[in-house]
Amino acid sequence: MVESWSFLDTVESNFRPLVVIELAKGTKEETIQWLTKRIVDKKADGGAQLLIKPLVTENGVENIYLVGASHLRLLLGAETVGLVKECSDNSMRAFTYSSRKTFKHFADDNHDFLTMAECQYIIKHELENLRAKDEKMIPGYPQAKLYPGKSIVRRLLTSGILVQIFPLHDREELKKLSHSWYGRVKVGYQPLDDVRCYFGETIALYFGFLEYFTFALIPMAVIGIPYYVFAWEDYDKYVMFATFNLLWSTVILEVWKRICAILTYRWGTLLMKRQFEEPRPGFHGVLGINPVTGREEPVYSSIKRQLRIYLVSLPFVCLCLYFSLYVMMIYFDLEQWALDYHKENESNFSNLMLYVPSIIYAIVIEIMNRIYRYAAEFLTSWENHRLESSYQNHLILKVLVFNFLNCFASLFYIAFVLFDMKLLRQSLATLLITSQILNQFAESLLPYWLQKRYNRRMKKSMCSKKTDTDLSLAEQVNMEKEMGTYLGTFDDYLELFLQFGYVSLFSCVYPLAAVFAVLNNITEIYSDALKMCRVYKRPFSEPTANIGVWQLAFETMSVISVVTNCILIGMSPQVDALFPDSKMDLVLTVALVEHLLLAIKFIMAFVIPDKPRDIQMKLAKLEFESLEALKQQVRAFQMQLHFLLIHH
Amino acid sequence: MVESWSFLDTVESNFRPLVVIELAKGTKEETIQWLTKRIVDKKADGGAQLLIKPLVTENGVENIYLVGASHLRLLLGAETVGLVKECSDNSMRAFTYSSRKTFKHFADDNHDFLTMAECQYIIKHELENLRAKDEKMIPGYPQAKLYPGKSIVRRLLTSGILVQIFPLHDREELKKLSHSWYGRVKVGYQPLDDVRCYFGETIALYFGFLEYFTFALIPMAVIGIPYYVFAWEDYDKYVMFATFNLLWSTVILEVWKRICAILTYRWGTLLMKRQFEEPRPGFHGVLGINPVTGREEPVYSSIKRQLRIYLVSLPFVCLCLYFSLYVMMIYFDLEQWALDYHKENESNFSNLMLYVPSIIYAIVIEIMNRIYRYAAEFLTSWENHRLESSYQNHLILKVLVFNFLNCFASLFYIAFVLFDMKLLRQSLATLLITSQILNQFAESLLPYWLQKRYNRRMKKSMCSKKTDTDLSLAEQVNMEKEMGTYLGTFDDYLELFLQFGYVSLFSCVYPLAAVFAVLNNITEIYSDALKMCRVYKRPFSEPTANIGVWQLAFETMSVISVVTNCILIGMSPQVDALFPDSKMDLVLTVALVEHLLLAIKFIMAFVIPDKPRDIQMKLAKLEFESLEALKQQVRAFQMQLHFLLIHH
Repeated sequence: MVESWSFLDTVESNFRPLVVIELAKGTKEETIQWLTKRIVDKKADGGAQLLIKPLVTENGVENIYLVGASHLRLLLGAETVGLVKECSDNSMRAFTYSSRKTFKHFADDNHDFLTMAECQYIIKHELENLRAKDEKMIPGYPQAKLYPGKSIVRRLLTSGILVQIFPLHDREELKKLSHSWYGRVKVGYQPLDDVRCYFGETIALYFGFLEYFTFALIPMAVIGIPYYVFAWEDYDKYVMFATFNLLWSTVILEVWKRICAILTYRWGTLLMKRQFEEPRPGFHGVLGINPVTGREEPVYSSIKRQLRIYLVSLPFVCLCLYFSLYVMMIYFDLEQWALDYHKENESNFSNLMLYVPSIIYAIVIEIMNRIYRYAAEFLTSWENHRLESSYQNHLILKVLVFNFLNCFASLFYIAFVLFDMKLLRQSLATLLITSQILNQFAESLLPYWLQKRYNRRMKKSMCSKKTDTDLSLAEQVNMEKEMGTYLGTFDDYLELFLQFGYVSLFSCVYPLAAVFAVLNNITEIYSDALKMCRVYKRPFSEPTANIGVWQLAFETMSVISVVTNCILIGMSPQVDALFPDSKMDLVLTVALVEHLLLAIKFIMAFVIPDKPRDIQMKLAKLEFESLEALKQQVRAFQMQLHFLLIHH
Repeated sequence: MVESWSFLDTVESNFRPLVVIELAKGTKEETIQWLTKRIVDKKADGGAQLLIKPLVTENGVENIYLVGASHLRLLLGAETVGLVKECSDNSMRAFTYSSRKTFKHFADDNHDFLTMAECQYIIKHELENLRAKDEKMIPGYPQAKLYPGKSIVRRLLTSGILVQIFPLHDREELKKLSHSWYGRVKVGYQPLDDVRCYFGETIALYFGFLEYFTFALIPMAVIGIPYYVFAWEDYDKYVMFATFNLLWSTVILEVWKRICAILTYRWGTLLMKRQFEEPRPGFHGVLGINPVTGREEPVYSSIKRQLRIYLVSLPFVCLCLYFSLYVMMIYFDLEQWALDYHKENESNFSNLMLYVPSIIYAIVIEIMNRIYRYAAEFLTSWENHRLESSYQNHLILKVLVFNFLNCFASLFYIAFVLFDMKLLRQSLATLLITSQILNQFAESLLPYWLQKRYNRRMKKSMCSKKTDTDLSLAEQVNMEKEMGTYLGTFDDYLELFLQFGYVSLFSCVYPLAAVFAVLNNITEIYSDALKMCRVYKRPFSEPTANIGVWQLAFETMSVISVVTNCILIGMSPQVDALFPDSKMDLVLTVALVEHLLLAIKFIMAFVIPDKPRDIQMKLAKLEFESLEALKQQVRAFQMQLHFLLIHH
């Protein structure tokens, strides 16, 4: 019953399952035969040349297949995807099979040269690049059309025949990783390199950023504490705090770029060549010729997309923003009501009641953010972007604008329309703390509960007391396929972005915000780590060289915070008192200081190099070498040619 | 006596002189022998494989040598320098000798496939890359040290043995070009493609920018004229004008990037690979190992350079700025004196006297700018930058900061300290017009006079009435070697930059500035063209893909002009009258509008793509093709490998 279509290795012991493919129940035999044949076929015949085996459980075959590959195949795949590895001379170079001996730790029998995450990434890449040849449809499913060059796996996914593809966990490794990551209470850095080996660069970079950001907030938090302890109300101290904050936030964002370069250089992704971007899975259109590749593929008119964006998405976003402002006004009514109530019956209860509107509003904000997120995803997907990157940019823009307004509009209103600093501080504190508690609940308590439930279910189904590492392969696969899917780092970055807003936008009226942010982030690291290791399916590793558009988002926030903080300081009574004669001078001074600070920020961003000097040197060295190699090639060819011409 | 060391072509008729090398009088025979041998030696022996001939005049050999190259050598050189040419299918591709047949207009006997400027660029590149092998010094000059890899030509230049290297004019071509460029009064575009063919991309791009900028100023000028004609003083009209100006200046700078991409794509430089940057000629230091290339070359500690920059250059620049401000204060004393004089004796003469201080100050500014320019060059050269690009950046930064302050400080002072709009307008007009007249004089009248003088001298020396095109080669070389050297586009861009400042910084008080700028630029095109064709030696062609740091400089200026214009409008009595109750509201409104305008500017800069869609597509297509080719290579290799492994 156990069949193996492997053609390079047929020995059972050689097969290491890496990726799981789950087909829909009742998929036609004809389709399965065709798909497995395509997967094991030689590259020369247009196949993926991988190994595939059906998973056999107690209930028989359940349309679940395990995909693996021979060691050689993986090495060749590493060259295809352009993996960059460390050489024996400590330099980072793109791996090629012919130069394999020059790489550190390479040995023909060392199967750990590529990490499991890299192997899984290679298999995913090969599967996604398995393209239709002359098939007009998926055999057995005439409605699932194919055309030459269409990715078979993507079509199978969109037509529902393929339920999911996911990489398998490595229970041993995971246990080691989780122990060193969050298993014990310790002071120190996260094992980022191990995280990267297991989960890939995108996730490791998120955790790197989270950790860096937490450390970067500590100075702000430390400076902020005495303001609370001694109840400092002197505005000169606030001015100092705010100025420090503004310059500090620029510095940390610039320094992050450098740290990011160090990390991604070590991981090899800084040097990885960008692959040509294929259309995203959801993209549809009438068949046409792509002018860039000259291939037949769905084409969707750019004008139609623009129309959808400007005539539907934009009005919808504006409507949502209006609705969010409307909710804000209701909050202010509630606030007024609570204040009146407090005035009428001064009691402990009424005092507590003062916080209720803010708490309710914070919860409503969280709910609105989450609902809007789905709407934005739907709309952006409907806009039918051809490339994943373009889809992501439009989605992030939509979500950021709404989240920014939704979270901060009320604070702006309180600060710059009501001029009520006491309410601002109270509101800021309530919003920040409530949203942190909600997020921690959704990310930490909920996972814990899920964890419990899954433990219970597992024990029930197996009637045994096996630990995780003792599970049979079939049990492991069946358990993992039921786990949730990690949808990427978007929500995690968004949370950090909003937190950065709370900390920096009004930092001069509420220095304690940084303290809460630090405390939150420390638990956040643990809960996010738990979530990655225990709650979700293992995600595919995604190489990346930076945090992308989030860098820009954080920088924009820090520019806005210069403006808000300058205004807040200008409005403070103490600064006011410095200009007793003329309000005018005050405003002009504030405007001048603001422009100076902005200028300093831009100059700092310009002057601090994005990459540390040694990384720059290493990159220059690589570039020089490749130019030299090219020159050598050209020269050798030219000499040959000269020789021929002369002796002819 | 006429020797030719050519080894590929020895036929006299094949030799086309392209580049002239002038050695110092009395250069030792031994040195000349060695140099010419190195130039004609085969590539394989470390030579440049070019052709060289001494120039024979009536006075005998004068240490002037003509350098040329065989057609084949030039084609191979084109591949080495990475020239990008148009293919038969209208796409632009890097030229390679092996794919030569696919290029448009290529034929083995078509010697016009490469333009003369390209040939000269190739020869310059080959000469500069002629490197010392095991020579420890230049033969005959023990003090001129060499080390393996040092560029021989650069050492010869720095030690004064080589007086100059310059490309020859092509009299026929030049006559055609100058006729179509400035020879007749016409309305229309410049022949930019011809300019590019003759002078190279850097110069053509400057003229392209000058022309574009002039056209872009026309709308401002047209809108500005009625303000003068009807003597509009309504500030609502000024507000409209200023708002239009601010948005327009952003748009024109963004659109320029697109036009620049179109031009440089057509010229092939957009696709040209960046060459590895060698140390600049003036760079010196103790011999060490370059960590990037691993080669022996002079090394200069970065800390020493930083010390020179921060402890000498920076204080010097600050001192110059202080001096410039001091001169400005003297100007204001003069201004006050002229005003007093005018009050005492009201006459036409005294009225005229009012303009004298501004005119004197404008002249002083020009003189100070020019002196400072030399000081900045000296200092930056003394800072001993390793790369030409780093040298240029430091020089441009120094010069821009000083020029900006020197030219605009008095205007800022008048506008924002004295609040004297009448004086501002008068001062602005005087400064702008005087500086334009001075520049036109230095660039147009002076050249014309030089032209005359050189005509006279030429006729005297030859006692004949030959026209330019009838000159013998020796006469032509002797004439051209005496012509001035064009020092690059720096001063031309700087002039435009300052003009842009005059036009945009205070546009709302003096709309006529744009009119003067347009008039000036039209004559500027003609005088600059005349200067290039008649006054200076032909410059070497320099491939470039954009106007570099000037784009940033212009953009910074347009950001500053948003701030200045908003303040000016806020200070106007008419706008003042809109807020009768509270000055505060006025200032806040102005600040709000300013921030909105800045936000719009940044969003516009972000939203408008830097390259037009069709250029983007063409670039994507090229990238796709090169990735495909690489993939094909890898695949072919992998298949071969698989085959070997299986059948082993």
